[in-house]
Parts: sequence; structure tokens; C-alpha cells
Amino acid sequence: MNFLESKILSDGVLKEGNILKVNGFLNHLIDVDIADQMAADFIRRFKGEHITKILTIEASGISIAMVTAFKLHVPMLFAKKTQSLNVDGEVYAADAYSFTHKTNNHIFVSSKYLSPDDKVLIIDDFLANGQALKALINIVEQAGAKVVGCGIAIEKGFQEGGALVRGLGYRVESIAIIDEMDYATQTIKFREQN
Amino acid sequence: MNFLESKILSDGVLKEGNILKVNGFLNHLIDVDIADQMAADFIRRFKGEHITKILTIEASGISIAMVTAFKLHVPMLFAKKTQSLNVDGEVYAADAYSFTHKTNNHIFVSSKYLSPDDKVLIIDDFLANGQALKALINIVEQAGAKVVGCGIAIEKGFQEGGALVRGLGYRVESIAIIDEMDYATQTIKFREQN
Repeated sequence: MNFLESKILSDGVLKEGNILKVNGFLNHLIDVDIADQMAADFIRRFKGEHITKILTIEASGISIAMVTAFKLHVPMLFAKKTQSLNVDGEVYAADAYSFTHKTNNHIFVSSKYLSPDDKVLIIDDFLANGQALKALINIVEQAGAKVVGCGIAIEKGFQEGGALVRGLGYRVESIAIIDEMDYATQTIKFREQN
Repeated sequence: MNFLESKILSDGVLKEGNILKVNGFLNHLIDVDIADQMAADFIRRFKGEHITKILTIEASGISIAMVTAFKLHVPMLFAKKTQSLNVDGEVYAADAYSFTHKTNNHIFVSSKYLSPDDKVLIIDDFLANGQALKALINIVEQAGAKVVGCGIAIEKGFQEGGALVRGLGYRVESIAIIDEMDYATQTIKFREQN
């Protein structure tokens, strides 16, 4: 069992409806040691890929994306969900339906910050249905840049996102993949990884 | 002139209506060297304060708050703007009107993650009218925790936020304070700091 799987078992809270709450260390209060270990694990898994940029989506992906970018010494770019007054000009945009918030997110990045020379590692905290990840990949490819792969903290392996994105030919590395979780018995089963 | 003031002059874009765009290094694409230097500067300014937690607000405060937390080796907590399905239970909440997005933000943190023992450094990318900062301070005090101070990247010194929050007795340390900026002449005047 790796460090993140252990942390999920000790500090995660399993709720009814296949909800895993990791607010205590990953997406509300951030444990910097866990973030540091996740960043190191992403860097190890994608070693030799000559990553030039980290891309994530606001808000809960930013923490781990930032630590990964910091350790790799490359810029971090985060896709925005609302067209703010402070971003104008050309953008790359895509739509992602959020099952968590039950809203369609129109996400975008300024076209100034992605170029065909970029080799982009996409980072996010969760992978479930894969909609956010597909939208981020779409944005990178609109820029003519290369998607090196996707580094995910927690993949819900019983949902379709992982198979969907891997089926499209992209490399997805998830530190913890949950194959089963059961509220009634409070058990979580992780997929074996090498 | 310090590192951030230089970066604002070289990479910031001044737009009509007192808008300063720093999307190229601070709140869309993040320059990790600048983030590193900002974090080091906050740590230097608040040295000896025995900070136990960093608090910010999603989304653009997260990057610099995370690097500061990482270097200080304390947890980072970010206030949320939308009550997600994944945060339930008791929360500390406050309202902050955003002049940028022209919306009233109901912001909150889970009460589990702030306690009366906490000495909290609040970090944010911008200080203008001070509404977000006041809401974050309110949240810390609802928990009975201590506000050590506020570390701000860029303060718009010609708006009322800085004077408002300092007038309430809180320590506000801004790395760059802009006293005047003029679109017509494309000039920015920084406040002298020791």
C-alpha cells in the first residue's frame, strides 16, 4: 500500500452515494507532506518526458499542480471556469460537465500561455467520469502542444473516466485507484499497481 | 525596487479602468520562481510568529499560499466559494462582494480545520477593496483562532482595502503596493517600503 492509499484509509471519509471525502488533506485543508510525496511520485512516473508546463483546473487541482511545478521548476497554468474581466483576448476553451456540482463548466485558458513547443503534464486531484480531463486534453491539443500524460491523485476506478481517457491513447498515472468502495461496510479496495 | 515590482513593470499589462493584468506570472500562468520569492518574503516578514496554518481563498490565492505553506511546513486551508456536495457539516462562513466578478461570494471553511490554537497567516494575490480579506479574518475569528497577519502579493494602494484592514488593527504586508497607475501614460508608481 502506498502513502496515499494509507492516508485515504486513515483520514478519508466514506459517505453514502460513492462519495469519498478527502477534505482533511487533499482538497480543502492541504497536507504539505502528502502534496510533496504526490508531486515526487508524478515526477518519478513521468521521468524523461521533458515536461515544459503543468496544467490543471481550478480550484482543487491547483495545490498539487503547484507543488509538482515547483519541484520540476516549470510554470503552472490553471484553466479557469468563469470568464473573468481579467482574462480577455484569444482563449482555448472546452466544456466539461461536473457531476459533483451538477453544472456544465465552460473552461478556458488564455492562448498566450500554451504553444506548440509545450509538453504538458495535466494534473488533477480526482478522476471519475473523465469530463474535466477530456476538456483539459482538448485545450492542450487546440494549442498544438503535446499531452505528455495525466497525473491524478485519486482515480475512481469503478467509474468510466480512466478507461475512457486511456482508451483514447493517453497515459494516465493515478497514485491511488479505487476499484470498490462500500459505505455499508466502510471498505475501500485499491487496484494493485507496480 | 523589489523582485515583484520589477516583474509587474516588465510583465504586467495595464488596461483601462485601473485593471492590472498579471496573468502571465501570478494568477493564470504561475511563475514558480516568483512564487518562491514571494513565499520567502512572506516568511521573512512574519518571522517569529509561530504560524500554524496558511489560509487563502480559491482560486488565484492558492498557488502562492501553497508554496508559502510548503516552505513553512504547515497545512494550507483554502476557503471555498460554492457549497459543494463534498463539504458538509459545520462551517464558518462570511460574505465578500467581488468587484471583479460583480457577485456576492458566500465563502466558507469547514469548522474542523480551524481551532482556537491556530495562528493563521492569511495570503492572497490582490488587495483592493478589502472585502475578501475582511471575510477571511472574520472566519478565523469565528474559530477563536489568531490572525497573525495578511500577506498580499499586490496591493492597490489607491483603493480603500489596505487602510481599512490596517485600521482594524491587523498587520498587512504587501510585497508590492501600487499608489498610482495610469493607463494613458502606462506608468505605475509603487509605494516606498523599508
